[in-house]
Amino acid sequence: MFILPKKTTIIEVGPRDGLQNEKNIVDTKNKLAFIQALQNAGVQEMELTSFVSPKWVPQMGDAKEIVEQTKKIGRQFVLSPNEKGAERALEAGAKSIAVFVGVSNSFNKQNINRTTDEAMDALQPVIAILKAEGIFVRACISTAFYCPYEGKIEKEDVIELCRRFVSMGVDELSVADTIGMANPVESYELFKLLKVTFPDVLIAAHFHDTRKMAIANIFAALQAGIDRFDSSAGGLGGCPFAKGATGNVATEDVVHMLNTLGIHTGIDVNKICEAVEIIEPHVSRPIETGMYRLYKTKEV
Amino acid sequence: MFILPKKTTIIEVGPRDGLQNEKNIVDTKNKLAFIQALQNAGVQEMELTSFVSPKWVPQMGDAKEIVEQTKKIGRQFVLSPNEKGAERALEAGAKSIAVFVGVSNSFNKQNINRTTDEAMDALQPVIAILKAEGIFVRACISTAFYCPYEGKIEKEDVIELCRRFVSMGVDELSVADTIGMANPVESYELFKLLKVTFPDVLIAAHFHDTRKMAIANIFAALQAGIDRFDSSAGGLGGCPFAKGATGNVATEDVVHMLNTLGIHTGIDVNKICEAVEIIEPHVSRPIETGMYRLYKTKEV
Repeated sequence: MFILPKKTTIIEVGPRDGLQNEKNIVDTKNKLAFIQALQNAGVQEMELTSFVSPKWVPQMGDAKEIVEQTKKIGRQFVLSPNEKGAERALEAGAKSIAVFVGVSNSFNKQNINRTTDEAMDALQPVIAILKAEGIFVRACISTAFYCPYEGKIEKEDVIELCRRFVSMGVDELSVADTIGMANPVESYELFKLLKVTFPDVLIAAHFHDTRKMAIANIFAALQAGIDRFDSSAGGLGGCPFAKGATGNVATEDVVHMLNTLGIHTGIDVNKICEAVEIIEPHVSRPIETGMYRLYKTKEV
Repeated sequence: MFILPKKTTIIEVGPRDGLQNEKNIVDTKNKLAFIQALQNAGVQEMELTSFVSPKWVPQMGDAKEIVEQTKKIGRQFVLSPNEKGAERALEAGAKSIAVFVGVSNSFNKQNINRTTDEAMDALQPVIAILKAEGIFVRACISTAFYCPYEGKIEKEDVIELCRRFVSMGVDELSVADTIGMANPVESYELFKLLKVTFPDVLIAAHFHDTRKMAIANIFAALQAGIDRFDSSAGGLGGCPFAKGATGNVATEDVVHMLNTLGIHTGIDVNKICEAVEIIEPHVSRPIETGMYRLYKTKEV
């Protein structure tokens, strides 16, 4: 009945998006062990770190070392918020770089003190440099469904922002329900529209599980033909601007569903749980995802 | 794109299925306060208690008092595992009675020390008496997707068991993924088949959230035309025969999704959370459902 992709790619965001929102500073060696375990589990694409100023995000102060020390995986992303970050990322040898912006003006003002237009104007020369260097560029688009300040975001505004990114030559659009408010019909409708509008660009879906709809939203996005999903081992992360928000959807839960649906991921859930077990002692809260709970009771 | 029901009914199972699997014995007055709060939230159908022997399930020792003390709601179910339980339920004035059996032989042997056939043979006269008394009979069918002992359950076996119940005159089939292993495609396929095979019987879907697919399974069941869902406030409950299994899908999370999809439930999520707040101090673990976490941070 359902026409679903036969193969999907997981973009593991735990080491960057997950840990960036974690208040405990995790030692570089523990991050590297976590990353290695994720690779061992079969993860082919990963957000590794961010070349943000360590003044603002001390957790990411070891970005250069993380890039240099990690063996190349299929595709490793680093985030760079601006030109300086992009330069540092290139120097460290990064081959795939992610940039980000929200659809919502208010969210961008709060987050990076720029309007959406100002943020896009600032990103344009950065993306031009990256593309000239042959870098794979991923554009992460936050608040694509709801904004904590502006409420419902119109699909047309998401498409318009994506169109600007596509015209700048980005290779991938990662479209996020940052505060975990989207429902499965909204997920299906936006991702279907994105697939139809941008057939030649990779499109990833990024869900947060705040209101427990993330897995249902992924199922709906699969129905819309999406075959790339961001997720975070252990559900690490969360949105610092949304009180009470829980984290990213958990890689182990997403992969479990995809695997049981017979959709190829190349990832071993048990080994993702091993990676979670490595990082859990170093983060500030116990990890209670579905598959990790079962793993701890040896029920996987 | 999706053709979904416009209206759904929630069968709240917290006071029975939830508390029956709770190790702390909850005082009758606290149960009654919980039930009252659930009614205030708009719940129209509820599993109230079980006329099981208090020797086996001390938590349900106050079944008679619970039935007598609760104001009539749209439909209140009590469980009765056998003829004696049915007699006690009728004496207490119950108008709707639920009976239960698993599809899997091994599960029934473990649970009630009978094969599936033996269990059905024992239920036949009970159902005949109940129907003769004009009672609404709900048949709860467990292990309809997977069994902890037998693995995957064939759809044909579920249909065959349901056919026997329908021939006995039951009014509703509540079909359960008891150990939380079903995926959304399996949910869609079984519920679509049930809808087509039994067009004149009410069909409810009962999911556990052990592997975090319950909400996605409900979304898939909606696509199959299912408009009745069992759920438990606070996600109370769980399967005592499956180690590590978490509880029923949480009413507040199910209703939130349905409400945001524009599907009528008649239930107020915030008031369900008020009911959860009443019961939480009396159960043995903290309640961490999506909407209840937000409620506690006043973000609902």
